[in-house]
Amino acid sequence: MTVVALDLEGVLVPEIWISFAEKTGLEELKRTTRDEPDYRKLMNYRIDILKRENLKLKDIQETIASIRPLEGAKEFLDELRQSAQVVILSDTFEEFAKPLMKQLGWPTIFCNSLSVSADGTIEDIRMRQEEGKLRAVEAFRSIGFYTFAAGDSYNDLKMIRKADAGCLFRAPENILDENPDLRIFERYDEFLSYIKENIK
Amino acid sequence: MTVVALDLEGVLVPEIWISFAEKTGLEELKRTTRDEPDYRKLMNYRIDILKRENLKLKDIQETIASIRPLEGAKEFLDELRQSAQVVILSDTFEEFAKPLMKQLGWPTIFCNSLSVSADGTIEDIRMRQEEGKLRAVEAFRSIGFYTFAAGDSYNDLKMIRKADAGCLFRAPENILDENPDLRIFERYDEFLSYIKENIK
Repeated sequence: MTVVALDLEGVLVPEIWISFAEKTGLEELKRTTRDEPDYRKLMNYRIDILKRENLKLKDIQETIASIRPLEGAKEFLDELRQSAQVVILSDTFEEFAKPLMKQLGWPTIFCNSLSVSADGTIEDIRMRQEEGKLRAVEAFRSIGFYTFAAGDSYNDLKMIRKADAGCLFRAPENILDENPDLRIFERYDEFLSYIKENIK
Repeated sequence: MTVVALDLEGVLVPEIWISFAEKTGLEELKRTTRDEPDYRKLMNYRIDILKRENLKLKDIQETIASIRPLEGAKEFLDELRQSAQVVILSDTFEEFAKPLMKQLGWPTIFCNSLSVSADGTIEDIRMRQEEGKLRAVEAFRSIGFYTFAAGDSYNDLKMIRKADAGCLFRAPENILDENPDLRIFERYDEFLSYIKENIK
């Protein structure tokens, strides 16, 4: 039996922070895990900007409410869930993920959570553990699963390399250049075929 | 964040083997994990009966195709999936589970598989690992999750006791008598309330 571990943003839904940057006009918030390998550093940078601009959790949630899954993502995921157990591994936060999971038919997601003050200010991130994606793939392997992992960012590389099989999906140039041995797909139909051929 | 680990048969769907026993009239097949604590022994007993009666995998799958989730199970699960990550932990086999998962909206399930010969005879079971339910709960805890587990049978007791919180659902008398300290629920609404009160 196989567990397929999928990244969320960029693979199934748009990048939440880029959508929020576009809505607020804050170009600085366009920096993502595709640019910055250190997630905690990236989140501290984002939280500082939110505080400076007096933006609260509800402001981000309002943007998320208007985000739709990427075109074809729901159909891809629906079909994949019939062939394997799928767990979305994301560094996002449960406070952000819920409306997106609803639109995707409530797939299982392992992510993090936020520390929010009484007035709705995001104060800090509460990581479930460090290297959460990698540790989850290791845990699936430890209980007898064959694993396949896919994503598009720096924070996906360790899980992809730890899994029994894996690939990139719509990754940017810098990730591709640094990982020429990994297969990459741009279309859901080809991505799905490759996964199906490489699971047990 | 919480992972809720749920048993399948007796909790969300009827006991597959009891349904099959009723369809075939083979009373011997009514023995389940609620009666026999040793799962491998139970499966060897079942496989011997199938071979003696010349019953194949497709005969069992035909019965499963007619099984519906327990009344209220889908609604219970739909609501629970909005509050926590749910993983069904079952000792059943992927060859049996798929049509049931489809009816339940494709929740994530960790189970086992079968070894089937070319003529469709079930030859053996392929356990993902020994103590699969217990090991999965341990794995969720090891990656930073708070865990809640529930079931109705002998093979659920270790995961329930290893989880941070847990309870029984519609368990038979013998399980209750031997585990007087565990809470038990008979109705989905009360079961759901108890889970929601005991997750993080």
